[in-house]
Amino acid sequence: MKEIKLFAPATIANVSCGFDVLGLCLDNVGDEMIIRKTNDKGVKITKISGQNLPLETEKNVAGVAVLALLEKVTIDYGFEIEISKNIKPGSGIGSSAASSAGAVFGVNKLLGEPFSLQELVPFAMEGERLASGTAHADNVAPALLGSFTLIRSYNPLDIVKIDAPKELYATVVHPQIEVKTSDARSVLKQTVSLQQTVTQLGNLGGLISGLYTEDYELIGRSLHDEIVEPYRSILIPEFENAKKAALEAGALGSGISGSGPSIFALSKGKETAEKVGRAMALVYKNIEIDFDVHVSKVNANGIKVL
Amino acid sequence: MKEIKLFAPATIANVSCGFDVLGLCLDNVGDEMIIRKTNDKGVKITKISGQNLPLETEKNVAGVAVLALLEKVTIDYGFEIEISKNIKPGSGIGSSAASSAGAVFGVNKLLGEPFSLQELVPFAMEGERLASGTAHADNVAPALLGSFTLIRSYNPLDIVKIDAPKELYATVVHPQIEVKTSDARSVLKQTVSLQQTVTQLGNLGGLISGLYTEDYELIGRSLHDEIVEPYRSILIPEFENAKKAALEAGALGSGISGSGPSIFALSKGKETAEKVGRAMALVYKNIEIDFDVHVSKVNANGIKVL
Repeated sequence: MKEIKLFAPATIANVSCGFDVLGLCLDNVGDEMIIRKTNDKGVKITKISGQNLPLETEKNVAGVAVLALLEKVTIDYGFEIEISKNIKPGSGIGSSAASSAGAVFGVNKLLGEPFSLQELVPFAMEGERLASGTAHADNVAPALLGSFTLIRSYNPLDIVKIDAPKELYATVVHPQIEVKTSDARSVLKQTVSLQQTVTQLGNLGGLISGLYTEDYELIGRSLHDEIVEPYRSILIPEFENAKKAALEAGALGSGISGSGPSIFALSKGKETAEKVGRAMALVYKNIEIDFDVHVSKVNANGIKVL
Repeated sequence: MKEIKLFAPATIANVSCGFDVLGLCLDNVGDEMIIRKTNDKGVKITKISGQNLPLETEKNVAGVAVLALLEKVTIDYGFEIEISKNIKPGSGIGSSAASSAGAVFGVNKLLGEPFSLQELVPFAMEGERLASGTAHADNVAPALLGSFTLIRSYNPLDIVKIDAPKELYATVVHPQIEVKTSDARSVLKQTVSLQQTVTQLGNLGGLISGLYTEDYELIGRSLHDEIVEPYRSILIPEFENAKKAALEAGALGSGISGSGPSIFALSKGKETAEKVGRAMALVYKNIEIDFDVHVSKVNANGIKVL
């Protein structure tokens, strides 16, 4: 195989009660990438369409992720990467993660798969380190593995894939305002009360139980976050109204996608998820903030070869 | 039915990473109770053997729990309760919970089961309120429902039963020293760092995933507690050595049972659990502290009618 074309999906990190540990993979929202073997060694980003992002390998998240991978193999050839970027950077649905994960996935395929999907995660995390300053895994893990992923531990890295119920759909509304990841981090309280921790533990346990037992109601009851959402939501105009609209339209639950500004909702069934999307969209239509809406099944498999 | 005889099991609350939300039910450690209908209204505790505990209804956890239940029904008869107490009060394996849960379970049976097991939990919690000052559910829920239970929320009460892998065994060592619940509470820090919360969330998620997927290794890797164990373990002599002995003998993980002083370990298979028991016992034998050791399968069904 000389060339591979693939779909690199968007992802929702945190998922309310799973701050910094949980993420889920979307199915029909994502980038397309073409990766080719080249006679020249190293990695070149030859083309990026759709967004204005750096082509220089060391400044591009895909480039940096592949460089991390190539340190672990001995080969006498290299790779070039074309990215058709559909996920807007800064939207909060794992734009950098899609590029990083997609790049290492594709290169690994062209190398004959020396690494498992789990083993690719640390390479993709290097792209995240470039994008945000911290090598977090809560978007690259679900992008690579699909479905829901739990980061049990970073040291050592220990990731658990959790299958999602068949009828679970995500709705994402992206109000097109800028929330800097550094701001989204700095508004967080660095200490939490023991009681809030216990509440969060109960809800995370409930959400994970609901995923395993396909108990949609339990999933809905568990989608609460007392430790991050109250602070981060201040940075997102109309967050409370959009969330309220989602719940009134039948969503199981709703919260901030990653560090925002995108807002996600989970629903049982496509029809409800679409209705939820229309209700959330209306909130931003009414105040004339541009927005995108995505409705997607949870993607059970992650990155797809096209 | 005029009379019922039952087995009311001991329980392990917290289970390391599940502070205040998780509990599990033991199979062969517990009290026996006989409950009889009487012509006199109300509840009488007629006999308690094995331990010196108050017979006065309002001062006895079983009495108080049944009184809470009886407020919800209209009947022209009453009950008397005999308790053969095998679980030592203050041992940290749910002694008061066994009496409270057993009593409401038995009375409910004699009433023709007007309440579900889930609905009995709040009544049994009243016994816990008498015993410790807080109406917690992390022992009475697993005693009533069996297996592992997750308290997703107290308000409203929302309890999830999680089945345990077939080969999961618990070992409990009870060093016979007194740890007051009030002391065990007062050593806790009332705030935790955001990072510790994230670590705990990862481990709880891992433990629950491991239970659903019967992944013993994942269960073991998840049995960590950074927010309670470092403080409470100070109250338990030789805790670190007992835990180390358990792990070296092959336990998946080990921690404090409830608020202590009992120490639990989980193992795959009875043989390993027994070996773990011998290793932990040796620690206390060597320093001449009296102790009990229990080895038990996780009890899938909770209270049993004998």
